[in-house]
Amino acid sequence: MNAPSGSAALGLIPANPLLSDQLPGHRLDFSHDQPLRLDCGVDLAPFRLAYQTYGTLNADRSNAVLILHALTGDQFVAEPHPVTGKPGWWDMMVGPGKTLDPEHYFLICVNVLGGCMGTTGPRDLDPAAGRPYGLSFPMITIADMVRAQVRVIDHLGIDKLFCVIGGSMGGMQVLQWAAAYPERVFAAVPIATAARHSAQNIAFHEVGRQAIVADPDWCNGDYLVEGRYPHRGLAVARMAAHITYLSEMSLHRKFGRNLQNRPSLSFGFDADFQVESYLRHQGSTFVERFDANSYLYITRAMDYFDLAAEHGGVLADAFRGTATRFCVVSFTSDWLFPTAESRALVHALNAVAANVSFVEIPTDRGHDSFLLEEPEFWAVLAGFLNGCAEHRGLQRR
Amino acid sequence: MNAPSGSAALGLIPANPLLSDQLPGHRLDFSHDQPLRLDCGVDLAPFRLAYQTYGTLNADRSNAVLILHALTGDQFVAEPHPVTGKPGWWDMMVGPGKTLDPEHYFLICVNVLGGCMGTTGPRDLDPAAGRPYGLSFPMITIADMVRAQVRVIDHLGIDKLFCVIGGSMGGMQVLQWAAAYPERVFAAVPIATAARHSAQNIAFHEVGRQAIVADPDWCNGDYLVEGRYPHRGLAVARMAAHITYLSEMSLHRKFGRNLQNRPSLSFGFDADFQVESYLRHQGSTFVERFDANSYLYITRAMDYFDLAAEHGGVLADAFRGTATRFCVVSFTSDWLFPTAESRALVHALNAVAANVSFVEIPTDRGHDSFLLEEPEFWAVLAGFLNGCAEHRGLQRR
Repeated sequence: MNAPSGSAALGLIPANPLLSDQLPGHRLDFSHDQPLRLDCGVDLAPFRLAYQTYGTLNADRSNAVLILHALTGDQFVAEPHPVTGKPGWWDMMVGPGKTLDPEHYFLICVNVLGGCMGTTGPRDLDPAAGRPYGLSFPMITIADMVRAQVRVIDHLGIDKLFCVIGGSMGGMQVLQWAAAYPERVFAAVPIATAARHSAQNIAFHEVGRQAIVADPDWCNGDYLVEGRYPHRGLAVARMAAHITYLSEMSLHRKFGRNLQNRPSLSFGFDADFQVESYLRHQGSTFVERFDANSYLYITRAMDYFDLAAEHGGVLADAFRGTATRFCVVSFTSDWLFPTAESRALVHALNAVAANVSFVEIPTDRGHDSFLLEEPEFWAVLAGFLNGCAEHRGLQRR
Repeated sequence: MNAPSGSAALGLIPANPLLSDQLPGHRLDFSHDQPLRLDCGVDLAPFRLAYQTYGTLNADRSNAVLILHALTGDQFVAEPHPVTGKPGWWDMMVGPGKTLDPEHYFLICVNVLGGCMGTTGPRDLDPAAGRPYGLSFPMITIADMVRAQVRVIDHLGIDKLFCVIGGSMGGMQVLQWAAAYPERVFAAVPIATAARHSAQNIAFHEVGRQAIVADPDWCNGDYLVEGRYPHRGLAVARMAAHITYLSEMSLHRKFGRNLQNRPSLSFGFDADFQVESYLRHQGSTFVERFDANSYLYITRAMDYFDLAAEHGGVLADAFRGTATRFCVVSFTSDWLFPTAESRALVHALNAVAANVSFVEIPTDRGHDSFLLEEPEFWAVLAGFLNGCAEHRGLQRR
């Protein structure tokens, strides 16, 4: 479609020294005359999309799998993270011999619009203002993220994706893809997700946002200009969110009331309990890799997501006439996106006689189960993908 | 025991103009030679206990009910709050013709040690330093709170309480009373509580504490000296906690995805959704009446609570030989103190052949159900209390 041109990404996460140009993977730049029309009415231009791929597109261009990342994920699915050096977030799922095998599939993952790992977001330079966007970045939606991904898929010359797959916010994007571009999606795997963000989930996001904007170093969103960073507020936001990604049982099993490196209670405010120490660590490491304003924008995009509302209040109408094969997955102990949400989705798909499988995986590890070692989940996915591959005429593993 | 002497309470919540001496209700002061030995090893003195009573102690001194308040509660159970003017927190339960009727019972509620409504806490003057305690206030425990309450009960000349009753942290104090002073408790009603704080609950508390200490206006606990107040951090802490007091269903029913005073999404960071506006209001009103350091100390006391650990790891041993009659109440949709916690308590009580009733009230309103209109809950309580009153030789209602 077009070759990378001058970078629109100049902002920096203070603790993340990598400019967009320095990140591994691919970049796709769009100039002033190639704007992206956003749901809020703004034409975003110029903008950059950063993405990563694994494997090779076959001659038929029929083996492409688009992986959609969650709120704090990025395109580095199956390789060490360029900032933290930690394994890719879906390293267990993606790789040679794994469920999503680059020997068989051409795997693509795009950093979402509004993100902070190379794709244009609020930390990037607003060319009209000559300074980082901050809060002048336009509000984005899940549909906007998907519209941006379409540009990448077009650029790669792929008419129809073999599969779109993702968990949590990734699952929202899966649903948006299937609803908006049914003819371009052969199979769809929404995992641990929902067709609309619930009141409780909006509430938790609002706590996180308020924690960030309460930090004086947030500077009304202009912390990059001011040379400051709301690391304390962002860490608190992450801590609150992290609890919701786990289950009570998993926290109990992992930590219980175990004390952290001490024989008895300190009668003070140090991290007496392991669970406190763990949470503090989650908060402090998160701020090293994530932009606070991106956190505001992406949580807002999730809150806004309501697929039924975009179809006259009838979720089934989002999928009427679809030929896509769906595999809906939930986890018993996920209280952030409980099985009831997946069930509502399945009912809507059934109402339009869609081809849909639904599996609730028994596990006590909560929402994050889709990122963890869950062999039954992997077996279900492998079975579904192999069946779809056969129907699609792909060589079976 | 002793008459009120000079006040030890001089600190102020900036948004709460009431000094301890100006609060309605009763005060009981203890001087330097009447210290309270705390679990942390400190002898606290002087100190003040602020409490409220409703009704009249009968001639036998056998109709006293000690009501134990929760984390952010206080002694103003059934009258307008002296700072906010809102109805008492258990106004639905306590009053003429209600379940806890001052015509029949002598009702007592003591502001907990470490609190900020008249009982000595971190906002009060440290007489040794000549300035508010702040973080030099000693760490307190649920057992310390109960030891302080014993001073009030002794002062009132009551040997045996007819009933100790409370929800959430109030329920922890009920259990501590029953375990430590079985001969002084005829009946005990622990509601929506647990014999130990879970890892998940510690985690949520730690988020709240980190939100407070992340606020630069917290000033390492010395905000009163500095003339500042961590209202933003405390509001975030309250918002996060408040979500845990409700159920997903109650949030969905109350707010769903309804918009706040607007026809459509704003594509901005205003409170688009009613649930956001509601949470922000919860945060901002809370800081008008509560002290941030008290929040740190009292959450810590809850985290430390582990009744089994104080009895060799065997919860049943906390109640061995008890003659107290127990009524354990949980609520189906309470995910902060789920029914499983009450069930574990009931198993322990059964193991020592205690007289125990257990009721799980079906409701979708979450942990806060014990504060709300729940007729089945009230009927259960009335039945239990009437039965106990008969056995105790009190006139039945």
